[in-house]
Amino acid sequence: MYFQSLLQMKKMLGQLDGWLAVAATHAESKTFDPVVYMELRLAPDQFPFARQVRTTCDTASKAVAALTGKPAPILDEAEATLDELRARIKSVLSYLDGFSAEHFEGAATRQVTQPRWKGEYMLGADYFLEHALPNFFFHLTHAYAILRHNGVPLGKRDYLGTLSKHTP
Amino acid sequence: MYFQSLLQMKKMLGQLDGWLAVAATHAESKTFDPVVYMELRLAPDQFPFARQVRTTCDTASKAVAALTGKPAPILDEAEATLDELRARIKSVLSYLDGFSAEHFEGAATRQVTQPRWKGEYMLGADYFLEHALPNFFFHLTHAYAILRHNGVPLGKRDYLGTLSKHTP
Repeated sequence: MYFQSLLQMKKMLGQLDGWLAVAATHAESKTFDPVVYMELRLAPDQFPFARQVRTTCDTASKAVAALTGKPAPILDEAEATLDELRARIKSVLSYLDGFSAEHFEGAATRQVTQPRWKGEYMLGADYFLEHALPNFFFHLTHAYAILRHNGVPLGKRDYLGTLSKHTP
Repeated sequence: MYFQSLLQMKKMLGQLDGWLAVAATHAESKTFDPVVYMELRLAPDQFPFARQVRTTCDTASKAVAALTGKPAPILDEAEATLDELRARIKSVLSYLDGFSAEHFEGAATRQVTQPRWKGEYMLGADYFLEHALPNFFFHLTHAYAILRHNGVPLGKRDYLGTLSKHTP
């Protein structure tokens, strides 16, 4: 299930990449500088768009690192353009490509901690469901919502992507 | 894992209920009618707040119904106040309380369909990860984002709730 969830996170990161492409095209059609998107936010004390995208990426890579006991990639946070954000997504997808189902053996009972938790830890199963997954979707959806709020033409299909449907 | 995810959905619905309480208090402190929240939206072609809350509830109950082969509750959509939305959350939580881990046996391979899919179906495992979970968090986070965008004092702790941390 962890590996299946990883595949779904990768899919959603691909969708996110597509939203950035649509946003760039929208900026071009409206003749505004797409760098404007980077600092857009829904509330003054929420992360701006660029950081929502970064945090979506980092939540995925940190979750997979924590659940498998591997080091998480350390990326700087210097992205200044949509293209640089897309490069971050690509970099994280490349990192995530390095994992297979076997890497997640024992993930449910692995102890996961963060510096801010001051020595406390969560079990992998709890960490994934209570922390990683809700945070991933939180920042992903805020990135989407910021674009929609600012007129970028996206819809639910751009969010969900292709579904694995079968014909009877 | 499906049952564990159900427990997490229940937790998040409880958080959502708390946001509505904070929103009501905020309206009172600012002396505006809390019914105003019901029609707030981030984009003219997105669901308003009330429908984001309803859809969050219904995505959870429909997912559990589909994965277990049980009928989903049919609730009308007549909620006109925050208190009525909170009653819907309570009703859905009560429905979800009726499920235990055993109900999800065979869920991964169960065929799930919707009227709009015109006879096509998804396997339970795909349906849950590709459709139900992303949609649940999509509408849940939009409900949160609409409130934050309109000044309701919420933070990440209100979103995540209490985490199952352990002391070494």
